[in-house]
Amino acid sequence: MFKSFVPTERTLMGPGPSDVNPRILTAMARPTIGHLDPEFIRLMDEIKQMLQFAFQTRNELTIPVSAPGSAGMETCFVNLVEPGDKVIVCQNGVFGGRMVENVTRVGGVAVVVQQTWGRAVDPEQLEAALKQNPDAKIVAFVHAETSTGVQSDAAALCKLAQQYGCLTIVDCVTSLGGIEVALDAWGADAAYSGTQKCLSCPPGLSPASMSPRALEKIKARTTPVTSWFMDLNLVMGYWGQGQKRSYHHTAPVNSLYGLHEALLILVEEGLEPSWQRHMKNHLALKAGLEAMGLTFVVPEAERLPQLNLVSIPDGVDEASVRQQLLEQYNLEIGAGLGVLAGKVWRIGLMGYASNPKNVLLCVNALEAVLSQYNAHINRGVATAAVQAVYSGS
Amino acid sequence: MFKSFVPTERTLMGPGPSDVNPRILTAMARPTIGHLDPEFIRLMDEIKQMLQFAFQTRNELTIPVSAPGSAGMETCFVNLVEPGDKVIVCQNGVFGGRMVENVTRVGGVAVVVQQTWGRAVDPEQLEAALKQNPDAKIVAFVHAETSTGVQSDAAALCKLAQQYGCLTIVDCVTSLGGIEVALDAWGADAAYSGTQKCLSCPPGLSPASMSPRALEKIKARTTPVTSWFMDLNLVMGYWGQGQKRSYHHTAPVNSLYGLHEALLILVEEGLEPSWQRHMKNHLALKAGLEAMGLTFVVPEAERLPQLNLVSIPDGVDEASVRQQLLEQYNLEIGAGLGVLAGKVWRIGLMGYASNPKNVLLCVNALEAVLSQYNAHINRGVATAAVQAVYSGS
Repeated sequence: MFKSFVPTERTLMGPGPSDVNPRILTAMARPTIGHLDPEFIRLMDEIKQMLQFAFQTRNELTIPVSAPGSAGMETCFVNLVEPGDKVIVCQNGVFGGRMVENVTRVGGVAVVVQQTWGRAVDPEQLEAALKQNPDAKIVAFVHAETSTGVQSDAAALCKLAQQYGCLTIVDCVTSLGGIEVALDAWGADAAYSGTQKCLSCPPGLSPASMSPRALEKIKARTTPVTSWFMDLNLVMGYWGQGQKRSYHHTAPVNSLYGLHEALLILVEEGLEPSWQRHMKNHLALKAGLEAMGLTFVVPEAERLPQLNLVSIPDGVDEASVRQQLLEQYNLEIGAGLGVLAGKVWRIGLMGYASNPKNVLLCVNALEAVLSQYNAHINRGVATAAVQAVYSGS
Repeated sequence: MFKSFVPTERTLMGPGPSDVNPRILTAMARPTIGHLDPEFIRLMDEIKQMLQFAFQTRNELTIPVSAPGSAGMETCFVNLVEPGDKVIVCQNGVFGGRMVENVTRVGGVAVVVQQTWGRAVDPEQLEAALKQNPDAKIVAFVHAETSTGVQSDAAALCKLAQQYGCLTIVDCVTSLGGIEVALDAWGADAAYSGTQKCLSCPPGLSPASMSPRALEKIKARTTPVTSWFMDLNLVMGYWGQGQKRSYHHTAPVNSLYGLHEALLILVEEGLEPSWQRHMKNHLALKAGLEAMGLTFVVPEAERLPQLNLVSIPDGVDEASVRQQLLEQYNLEIGAGLGVLAGKVWRIGLMGYASNPKNVLLCVNALEAVLSQYNAHINRGVATAAVQAVYSGS
């Protein structure tokens, strides 16, 4: 009745998961060892160090949460927010809305600074909210909004928050490894990411980091953290240095093998070369799609190179196009989310998936499928436009 | 500075993770597909069906929580317990204590029925507590205590709880696949397990199941679930039937490939043959260890065949013995936990690790290492005792 699950090989150019580097899949298939094994302790130590490199931080508490990105988000909120704490959430997409949920469920008070979806968070609007809410304790925002493909100025927003005495929680799910993330330079206090975006791992873990100021607030709590699983007072003991570790939960051993390999690949490439690669492939994709006559949604200065929001041409059934791309080309691109559902496609060029082969596949497959649907696009010009970017002409 | 992590191949005979079947590692290394891919929907549906088989339940909400076993526990408590709810926790080991933490952190009132550690939960003591607490709403207990190697009579405890109008939360982390788990026959309302015990997957997921009665209580809540990540109202939508699925978090795709393969292996073997295999290997291990003069801690009728608690002989440095087993034989056995720390070893024979090769390795390696420490054991007789069990003589 049942048999082994052998998936079709896809090219993953949606909002994540992105294509996984085969080195990472190989790493994940290595034999499981115990989570108390001395070799595992060494693995944990190396992962912490490489995560500090990726986040550009010296924060000692820089670890992977043993669950997907949304658990990383919740770990930040559930530890930092106490009942009654006022939290300013700058919302410019779906994931800001999830932050509000996180604040209210633990008894915090969310002040939402609503922004235009598809635009960066406006520092002036944040400053106005900070002036109106002198009792605010935390500012939260999304660095790279996965629902809209927009990057916000994390350095400016963290600086403002600090000026008004607030801690910051920064969502770096889609940014880590793809564009600059620099927690210490920003002065960010809590940040979390995901493994399935620009780190090119399968989903399942959430790298997170806490500043000493954030830890002070956690240690000074007068109410227990509502979650036992995510309580950083306990998790810290588990991820502590060397032999001082105390048992908490059982770590997802093989997923951590994968993350270790992914971080190693990032260390080998270097942060700036990785960001430059993401930008180069974004420019090539942009050249190809614009040559076809497609348009980008986000203003150029605010675009994420790793996640491209493209308007759906008039008269095109967007879901049907995605289905054809999947069935005919094994190519996955993303649908719009929230208010952008049905209006845009989200084309990811994340991590290992950010490469010329994928750019050419996407441009050519989209051209072919849109032609089937008689969309008004320019034909036969996209490939040359892509090639021009790569050849530097 | 860093390089790929290539672990030493161990034999995992601790309390979990247990040896992973190579078929499962192969499955986990298959190419990642998107969590919205039609093929992934099929994977989810098959996993749900095979989990229903493993748990012996028709509960529609039978799914893997996207995080390790402790998150599965928390998912049950955070959804079923509302502030002020009285929960009777039968504690006979470490994990009952964690249940109490889970109750109190969400504002519930825990009534602890403290049992002797290393013994099964006493139904009479539970009944006395139920009589004294007519306002109790939930009874929670651990079916197979990983800290003590004890099994409790889940059918009897669930029946009692039902007689007194209480829902039940049952920890099946170490039991699922190794001994009988029969949620519907027991009348259990919420249960959770782990993948790294008798299912022989790497750690990272927590199979869980909720009865219709449990779902009613969740749907009738007057306060929101404090955790967004674990809120079953949302998770249910994500794991719903076919096209009705709504986005929640990003599922750990490759870990689910592994769980699918693990469940398939269980389906192929059959539940009863799997339990019988665990029992047979337990009897062989017991014969070998007792021939050496080692003694078991738990009374025979309450022992878990998949987790054997053995007293440490006088004058033996138990940590040093475990270290030698690891260094000389790449064999991991477990230390005692909680009040049993330093007093016992925990020897697991779980899932794929429950086989004659492992039994012989463990018995022979332990004999060799204990001989180095001049422990008073009978030498040269263990292997024959093991072989006698397998040959049925």
